[in-house]
Amino acid sequence: MSEHLPLIDIKDAQEPLFWGVDIGGTNIKMGLVDDTGETLAFERIATEESQGPQSAVDRMAQTIRKIEQKLQLSPAQIPRVGLGSPGSMDLPKGMLVEPPNLPSWWQFPIRDALRTAVDRPVSFINDANAAAYGEYWLGTGQQNDSMILLTLGTGVGGGIIVNGELVNGVNSFGSECGHILVNTAADAQLCVWGGGRGQLEAYASASAVVQRTRQRLTEGAESQLSGLLGGGNSELTAKKVYQAAEAGDALALEIIDETARWLGIGITTLVHTLDPGLVVLGGAMNFGGSASAVGRRFLEAVREEFRSRTFDNVYAGTRLDFASLGGAAGYLGAAGYARRQYHPHPIPTN
Amino acid sequence: MSEHLPLIDIKDAQEPLFWGVDIGGTNIKMGLVDDTGETLAFERIATEESQGPQSAVDRMAQTIRKIEQKLQLSPAQIPRVGLGSPGSMDLPKGMLVEPPNLPSWWQFPIRDALRTAVDRPVSFINDANAAAYGEYWLGTGQQNDSMILLTLGTGVGGGIIVNGELVNGVNSFGSECGHILVNTAADAQLCVWGGGRGQLEAYASASAVVQRTRQRLTEGAESQLSGLLGGGNSELTAKKVYQAAEAGDALALEIIDETARWLGIGITTLVHTLDPGLVVLGGAMNFGGSASAVGRRFLEAVREEFRSRTFDNVYAGTRLDFASLGGAAGYLGAAGYARRQYHPHPIPTN
Repeated sequence: MSEHLPLIDIKDAQEPLFWGVDIGGTNIKMGLVDDTGETLAFERIATEESQGPQSAVDRMAQTIRKIEQKLQLSPAQIPRVGLGSPGSMDLPKGMLVEPPNLPSWWQFPIRDALRTAVDRPVSFINDANAAAYGEYWLGTGQQNDSMILLTLGTGVGGGIIVNGELVNGVNSFGSECGHILVNTAADAQLCVWGGGRGQLEAYASASAVVQRTRQRLTEGAESQLSGLLGGGNSELTAKKVYQAAEAGDALALEIIDETARWLGIGITTLVHTLDPGLVVLGGAMNFGGSASAVGRRFLEAVREEFRSRTFDNVYAGTRLDFASLGGAAGYLGAAGYARRQYHPHPIPTN
Repeated sequence: MSEHLPLIDIKDAQEPLFWGVDIGGTNIKMGLVDDTGETLAFERIATEESQGPQSAVDRMAQTIRKIEQKLQLSPAQIPRVGLGSPGSMDLPKGMLVEPPNLPSWWQFPIRDALRTAVDRPVSFINDANAAAYGEYWLGTGQQNDSMILLTLGTGVGGGIIVNGELVNGVNSFGSECGHILVNTAADAQLCVWGGGRGQLEAYASASAVVQRTRQRLTEGAESQLSGLLGGGNSELTAKKVYQAAEAGDALALEIIDETARWLGIGITTLVHTLDPGLVVLGGAMNFGGSASAVGRRFLEAVREEFRSRTFDNVYAGTRLDFASLGGAAGYLGAAGYARRQYHPHPIPTN
């Protein structure tokens, strides 16, 4: 997937401009985006989690200053910064609370630290919500007023837009679609991060794919993946399940079909709640996406489960598709959300 | 429950005024509501479903004219009418599509028929969404920006407000919380209205309570309800289960606790999707509500199931409570929604 969109020249940019910052466990992606969503500059810096959050904030601010100087831009031309980060978080306070993959960053007031460092307002949101806003503004959802994004990775994230507005929630827990319940049986899978049983994340994440494959192999299922069973947790990955499926491995295809069915169950519940007209699948675990026969089979199996559980007119009026911005969705959405908060209501275009 | 709120005098009313109309299978409730939510006039007319929808529209218009003449009001003082109706419906077209309890009214353009008959714009919404908007504007939700209402009756309806806006959905299927999945096992209960398995409605509606009680009695459970088993469908009702519970009947209490657990599961999913800060239980099947020990036990059991499945901060930041407007929520919400569409954005008060 693309890391960022093609860059445009500064003379073609439409002001105001916005910084979009997307914090991940390994890298921080930073893009300078114009009012129409075009990217003028992009840089990726290391998160260096163990150095602590203030170090990262300082390096973000250095990167911003460096690029602004290089492009001869004044801060007034870039009036706001959007910041997407993994949760848990307290949005009204601008705090990271207890993000599992940033253990040295707990209880840090990241929004205000960045605001001080770059001397302008910062719009702070959840990373999956940022990705959803990116797909809504510039990607698969750009013709829609409402949509749901599910990001399939190590866990399952979600982002919901209803009539142009992100659902951030009262407790900064809005759009946490990975935590909806898809199995309420007493023996349902435990959530990846601990906590509740039967949540979508425990069935449709990369971790769940690996876990289910491992279990089936342990039970003696035949598969080209069998040789990976003894190799510790790191050898069997969702990507290897996908590659085995591409080679026609029956177990891998079965695991992918099961994953699609659980996703279809979750999507039915989400659509019956919000009826958004569009559900988008993003994240790294897309089994090759629409470019791959396995990816297309996966999407078709999600659709079939949804079709079997919903009403004909709701099925007909709901598009299911892959995300289109790849790894750029997060910084684009963070910039787009900053733009949304900067512009008076209503803004000119989607 | 109250059928309408206490009436105020016309001289105390704050204009503009709005009609709120709430269509049910037996009765149509019509209230004239001022800009602050006070009711000036209320009338209930028979639905007379078999006479067809145009007859009902004509009688609604007659009632409106009669009350406006009696109060010496001109149509200009009441610039808009809100109309809540059971679905299925097509909101953009203003059509009733196939409402199960109005079989003679299918495919009827009710919004435009009423607009013609009363010569002013009509805001058309789903009845449960209207009730949710009523509770949001004037009831349990009046201090909140977002909320979810679940209406527990023969079926389970829902209404969702996110940051002041009703979730009506792209296919007029928004907020259909009765259709979220709470049990995905192969032997899950079928939906009351046919269709999918495992939906909340099949577990937390009055119909579901009766069905589960009947099954338990058939299996030989001891209960003061046993005598009702032979009496056909009409004799065993959710109300009788409630009354037996009030008298300490163990089976009835068990059935109510089970209902609460299924509701708690559904609420967990809804809160993890929207994080609204408030979930309100409305509708006739509230086991006496907060005025009754059984109702309070029921609500506590819902809370406990939710607590066991969510995160501590989300539980702490989410209020669960009964609705407070009773049977008036529908017409008040319809009027409130008309007011919302009449007033420019943003409106002065919640």
